[in-house]
Amino acid sequence: MSLKKKVSIAVVRRLPRYYRYLSDLLSMDITRISSKELSARMNITASQIRQDLNCFGGFGQQGYGYNVESLYKEIGNILGVNDRFKTIIIGAGNMGQALAHYGNFEKRGFDIIGIFDINPDLLGKKIKNMEIMHTDNLEDFITKNQVDIAILTVPHEQTREVAERVARAGVKGLWNFSPMDLKLHYDTVIENVHLSDSLMVLGYRIKEKFGSK
Amino acid sequence: MSLKKKVSIAVVRRLPRYYRYLSDLLSMDITRISSKELSARMNITASQIRQDLNCFGGFGQQGYGYNVESLYKEIGNILGVNDRFKTIIIGAGNMGQALAHYGNFEKRGFDIIGIFDINPDLLGKKIKNMEIMHTDNLEDFITKNQVDIAILTVPHEQTREVAERVARAGVKGLWNFSPMDLKLHYDTVIENVHLSDSLMVLGYRIKEKFGSK
Repeated sequence: MSLKKKVSIAVVRRLPRYYRYLSDLLSMDITRISSKELSARMNITASQIRQDLNCFGGFGQQGYGYNVESLYKEIGNILGVNDRFKTIIIGAGNMGQALAHYGNFEKRGFDIIGIFDINPDLLGKKIKNMEIMHTDNLEDFITKNQVDIAILTVPHEQTREVAERVARAGVKGLWNFSPMDLKLHYDTVIENVHLSDSLMVLGYRIKEKFGSK
Repeated sequence: MSLKKKVSIAVVRRLPRYYRYLSDLLSMDITRISSKELSARMNITASQIRQDLNCFGGFGQQGYGYNVESLYKEIGNILGVNDRFKTIIIGAGNMGQALAHYGNFEKRGFDIIGIFDINPDLLGKKIKNMEIMHTDNLEDFITKNQVDIAILTVPHEQTREVAERVARAGVKGLWNFSPMDLKLHYDTVIENVHLSDSLMVLGYRIKEKFGSK
């Protein structure tokens, strides 16, 4: 099944969540599920689920519901888990190392093939069998290896410069952990991770439930 | 201004983003802004913005727009940045250490007051002037210090057990970095961080823009 039309980013942002829930169902040997049951599990309305999945041509059958395995595979294809994205990490500090060891990324189609830093204490050290390289080698490495994605975990004030360098060198996507909404004058696709946002939502929900202090 | 009614979680999830953009505007000495201008910057429709902010009684004035500073302060109050949440980190590996050093959390109202692990190589070491403690001391510490939030960066298979322990000990909120949707039979509020979700959205957007491989 191929993409029929441009799907709204709001729907796209929900797909990884469907993917996770379907993976859980598979691991529990549940082979089919109605939009109603899925709705109860995921805390999304059934009509929202039908609408979302309709964007991709719809995989459900009236009276049967969804076949878990084929829906899981289709959403995986849509998200590109079989595409294998060549990924590098720039910034080998705690966050960079944590991400390098995060096994889930490989399962989802992202292969970490290089790690970079400028700290002399880190250069040459090995993380997951890869020697940490100096960022001077970034452009060379990106060109030679046709790197798709750069994960940026460098200090705030260096983020823009590094991002522009790797964008110019041909990286297609940036995953930015610096607390800023990075924007560039390049075609590069950027996802900014704002960890504080999620923590602030937690704070709000605690206040709502337990009252202000 | 106080909360008039229960605000939908979708709106709440957008508030930290408003908060960030308003903070940027303040740092550029922009004192007032229309919903239209804010819309262009944030890539949200102006009517969405008006709707969102109306949930809290609305702060805009016809023909004037929003006063950036007072809107910034109000949203900060709503989110609880002045409430000071006492926060501990459980799991002092790379992710735990990265989060401990993330300066933004304190600015947003979250004070890290303790870090825990079970690894003998880590115990007693200092992170930001705090000695890493053994998780055996969790319950004591939580009770004595009236801890509000526990950040969980422990291995997947230990997450549930640790979460139940701290929930029983009276923690109000959990911020879970383990790749699972943690649910507990306690009142504890839980926010699960799914890093892979954001990376998968990046993959999708790259495919959409540059084509499949």
